[in-house]
Amino acid sequence: MLTLYAAYNFPAFLKGVVRDLRALWALEELGLPHDIRWLDTAKGEQREAANRAVNPFGKIPSLTDGELKLFESGAIVSYLYEKAGRAPRDAAARAAEAQWSFAALNTVEPVLFEIFMWDRFWTERPGRETRRAEVISVAKTRIADLDRALAGRTSLSGAGFGAADILMATVARFALHEPETFADAGHVRAYLDAAYARPAFSRALARQGTGPET
Amino acid sequence: MLTLYAAYNFPAFLKGVVRDLRALWALEELGLPHDIRWLDTAKGEQREAANRAVNPFGKIPSLTDGELKLFESGAIVSYLYEKAGRAPRDAAARAAEAQWSFAALNTVEPVLFEIFMWDRFWTERPGRETRRAEVISVAKTRIADLDRALAGRTSLSGAGFGAADILMATVARFALHEPETFADAGHVRAYLDAAYARPAFSRALARQGTGPET
Repeated sequence: MLTLYAAYNFPAFLKGVVRDLRALWALEELGLPHDIRWLDTAKGEQREAANRAVNPFGKIPSLTDGELKLFESGAIVSYLYEKAGRAPRDAAARAAEAQWSFAALNTVEPVLFEIFMWDRFWTERPGRETRRAEVISVAKTRIADLDRALAGRTSLSGAGFGAADILMATVARFALHEPETFADAGHVRAYLDAAYARPAFSRALARQGTGPET
Repeated sequence: MLTLYAAYNFPAFLKGVVRDLRALWALEELGLPHDIRWLDTAKGEQREAANRAVNPFGKIPSLTDGELKLFESGAIVSYLYEKAGRAPRDAAARAAEAQWSFAALNTVEPVLFEIFMWDRFWTERPGRETRRAEVISVAKTRIADLDRALAGRTSLSGAGFGAADILMATVARFALHEPETFADAGHVRAYLDAAYARPAFSRALARQGTGPET
């Protein structure tokens, strides 16, 4: 049985942003039976031994599948698509899915995550005015590049909604509060609208952070 | 034939740091025949049409393999191991390699990359004192977590030197100039020493940035 380690008891503004949404979304897309082990993040349970036995960095999401232990949202979402028999088969299509998964997490996420930090946690910091304008400019460049790549496509790989799309569409949520980031990127906005309109996304978002029944 | 798009004509302090080192290292480890298409980064050639046709973000490395176009260092290194028949075969081992590849690029790199930026580009910025101390503290926590995971192992996956090790060992180079980051992490230091002692690493480092023969 799959067991997802997911977060609850976090501030309301983190709903829709915490990275376990990626795994919840994949589970809903794929209809894979699973349990959830809820971790109380207000108590820091993600940093305690039970989660660290799966995830050495003490973060969420983590996943177990019988004896298998797995962390990193990118690896978890990819593994779930493999397990469901929904990952691409041939080498080129697999490489494309991996390429866009890494693009979401390594090329796009760090920039959008920094916007999130400036706006949610670092609002009074020295240097904010300089750096926030700069990082929004970098973000707009990245999103403009993504926009050209998405022209005429409904999925990043070109082979239908998959793991990379879950990752990119959740990464985007770090900067959805700052419309300037996406202002010139009509393809990206349409792509995100379509992703968030998927019933599996709505179900995942509704479940995120609900915690154990008491 | 494989063609790697790699950088030359960059400042000397970027040697050993630019991300095409990851692909060069994998090619040397695997002994795969290939060409290199050198891009003059002082002229911004990585942002011009030839590279953008492969890499929509205008960054390096990029790779072509006949008709296949591929970007993102994580996807390129993984693809090269697959092509050489040196990627793990079973689902659990593949998931472990992916997990550690994403950990290198999404959990470790953003933190170490920020140290690099503060020390190489942002030395006069407002807020440096506050944020640099904070990011070094976060980096030390990440590296301490990695250190515990590496105890008793010579590779991240536990199945021998592979794609994830190339990624983690090159990511670490963003903060090698700041010894405090690794001061308490003996396993990590030994792991990096062993990685950098590999002949394939020396060959890759020697080739990086050499550019076209004139």
